[in-house]
Amino acid sequence: MLTFPITEFQGRLAKTKQRMANAGADILLVTDPANMNYLTGYDAWSFYVHQLLILLIDEDQPIWVGRGQDASAAAHTTWLDKDHIIPYADYYVQSAERHPMDFVCDLLKGRKQDKQSIAVELDAYYFTAKSYMQLVQGLPNASFTDGTNMVNWVRIIKSEKEISYMKQAGKIAEKAMQTAFDSINSGVRECDVVADIAHAQISGLEDFGGDYPAIVPLLPTGEKTSACHLTWTDDRFKQGDPVIIELAGCYKRYHSPLARTAVIGMPSEQMQYVADCVVEGLNAALDAVKPGITCEELEMVWRKVIEKNGIKKESRMGYSMGLNYPPDWGEHTASLRPGDRTVLEPNMTFHLIPGIWMENMGVEISESFRVTETGCEILADFPRELLIKPNIRLA
Amino acid sequence: MLTFPITEFQGRLAKTKQRMANAGADILLVTDPANMNYLTGYDAWSFYVHQLLILLIDEDQPIWVGRGQDASAAAHTTWLDKDHIIPYADYYVQSAERHPMDFVCDLLKGRKQDKQSIAVELDAYYFTAKSYMQLVQGLPNASFTDGTNMVNWVRIIKSEKEISYMKQAGKIAEKAMQTAFDSINSGVRECDVVADIAHAQISGLEDFGGDYPAIVPLLPTGEKTSACHLTWTDDRFKQGDPVIIELAGCYKRYHSPLARTAVIGMPSEQMQYVADCVVEGLNAALDAVKPGITCEELEMVWRKVIEKNGIKKESRMGYSMGLNYPPDWGEHTASLRPGDRTVLEPNMTFHLIPGIWMENMGVEISESFRVTETGCEILADFPRELLIKPNIRLA
Repeated sequence: MLTFPITEFQGRLAKTKQRMANAGADILLVTDPANMNYLTGYDAWSFYVHQLLILLIDEDQPIWVGRGQDASAAAHTTWLDKDHIIPYADYYVQSAERHPMDFVCDLLKGRKQDKQSIAVELDAYYFTAKSYMQLVQGLPNASFTDGTNMVNWVRIIKSEKEISYMKQAGKIAEKAMQTAFDSINSGVRECDVVADIAHAQISGLEDFGGDYPAIVPLLPTGEKTSACHLTWTDDRFKQGDPVIIELAGCYKRYHSPLARTAVIGMPSEQMQYVADCVVEGLNAALDAVKPGITCEELEMVWRKVIEKNGIKKESRMGYSMGLNYPPDWGEHTASLRPGDRTVLEPNMTFHLIPGIWMENMGVEISESFRVTETGCEILADFPRELLIKPNIRLA
Repeated sequence: MLTFPITEFQGRLAKTKQRMANAGADILLVTDPANMNYLTGYDAWSFYVHQLLILLIDEDQPIWVGRGQDASAAAHTTWLDKDHIIPYADYYVQSAERHPMDFVCDLLKGRKQDKQSIAVELDAYYFTAKSYMQLVQGLPNASFTDGTNMVNWVRIIKSEKEISYMKQAGKIAEKAMQTAFDSINSGVRECDVVADIAHAQISGLEDFGGDYPAIVPLLPTGEKTSACHLTWTDDRFKQGDPVIIELAGCYKRYHSPLARTAVIGMPSEQMQYVADCVVEGLNAALDAVKPGITCEELEMVWRKVIEKNGIKKESRMGYSMGLNYPPDWGEHTASLRPGDRTVLEPNMTFHLIPGIWMENMGVEISESFRVTETGCEILADFPRELLIKPNIRLA
């Protein structure tokens, strides 16, 4: 069931250890599910209980530690030998008396690794304050440093195989967006459109199936288009409604996000104007993508276009993405915004999402791309414009 | 868009404040998305950035703090006045230089609340170690205590309206499980079955639509039935495959989980035997449910049945559930296992999931129920047995 050759996992591990060495860390505890997958292949919906990888700088395999009933998933999905898969007993799960990190402390003590410099992902999802406190208390002779995003920064440049997965995800995104557009109409319930989208995302294509994206389809409608992270209701679409559709295709946990804005009927003048500005800015930014440009320079290209058109946008206009789990497909490394001087390199992959949210409406039109040797390659091919839905029911 | 009357939210808040008072906390910071929803109605896929409620014991509304672009979702979905919705600037998001909790520290200082006793949800999803460290560092005159599960324990007893939502979720679960069973067959891809399940979950019924469950459908198949939290692949089902189907219906974020095990063709003798034992134990446990029994007593009823039949199970056999967000529909309060002396009361709601996972196979057959005045009421009506799928293609 391995999704990559073992050598690719080993290469990732070597790069991570290089970062550990640079940071003076003997041990890295990896709790981010995407990082766990990246280094070992581990893939299961088990991140609702505490689990982690222990990377010892001198050991050639990470140690997986998780709940007893998930050890079998680790055996099925990772390249780790059985003796590197260590389950804890069920009485550690969601207990007020015991914490899984106590088990980790005992494990490290048993291996005489309790006086080391230990890096932990302090700001990663699922690494709770309590987890950290139990480690600090249980390992009084260890020193702790911040390993947040250490693996994420290795993830930022994709391999050829990762890119091929993301292109497959892009195909799924195309299909899901087309499905959304076909399904939306006045009189149709929002939930029925999202059901169709989810079906397309998971079913995927004839040649390959889809995985679950890290974020459910977001479908703010009407005045709620000003609230970009609303999901859906069972209300019915009305003639004249604008609808933002943000979704992703996902293949083997790799994403290709895509957003469009549709209108059922004629768009308002303001909406068409904002959409035209967004597309103009998006095109300008995509034209400017090439190795060597920084994230903030790329954002400035976009910013100049929309400010010229009298629009202000405060939030970042894109971010690095790829492999991930709920709640986010973003990688938490490079962001396209002022102050981010990350230099673009070939096979970095971004979601460029120049959304504009105003008091009573919003427009999102996005593209996912990879940086090539000379420019960029779009992952999903879909008309880059405000989508106008002819209302066939009223026609 | 409020899902409950304001008075119901106020009642929840009053109960929470009572717990704060008992714990000597002047302030409770609520980061668990389910708890945020429970107290205010807040509902958006924004928990991938730091956000929280500030409950001041003397103030009659919580203060919502989140990302600028999500303030609009707070206005749309909560009962809070505008001056209790406080957005932070986008440059706090996923930044190596700034942290949203710095904003929270400044806010509390500005309100002269920085010398208080502050309870935080130390072991809640999304409350990272870094969040806690920033708070402790930024508020040196405050004292911090553990408020983990403080709101969750209020949530454990459901109101009539919450129960009605969970029954609607149960109807969706019935439909989704029937869809799964109809769709599974040899030669069909796993992803296509899950696509059908997801469609049923989200589309819901004619009278009401579905919401996204906190966990995607879990569908371990064949030998992988020993690994309960695997999701799916695009492999095709084969004649003879056992398939575990664990899913939930979800309505307005309230869940009704349901698991069944199906076999495509004839089950092995071992599987039929284990399934019969599971059903026998499940029935015995359901018969024993009534107000006054403790969680561990209920677990013992089940344990005695299966041990009599020569089967051992180490993991807990159920847990309290209801309102939730990814990654878990469980409430992290009562667990049906040895040592848990929580006393069952009317309108507590549990997922009773006596899964048995062996070396090379597993069986899950579950029910969700509410405790009534005299016993229990099942939320979803579906045949409680090993499901045998006649293979019509080969018939």
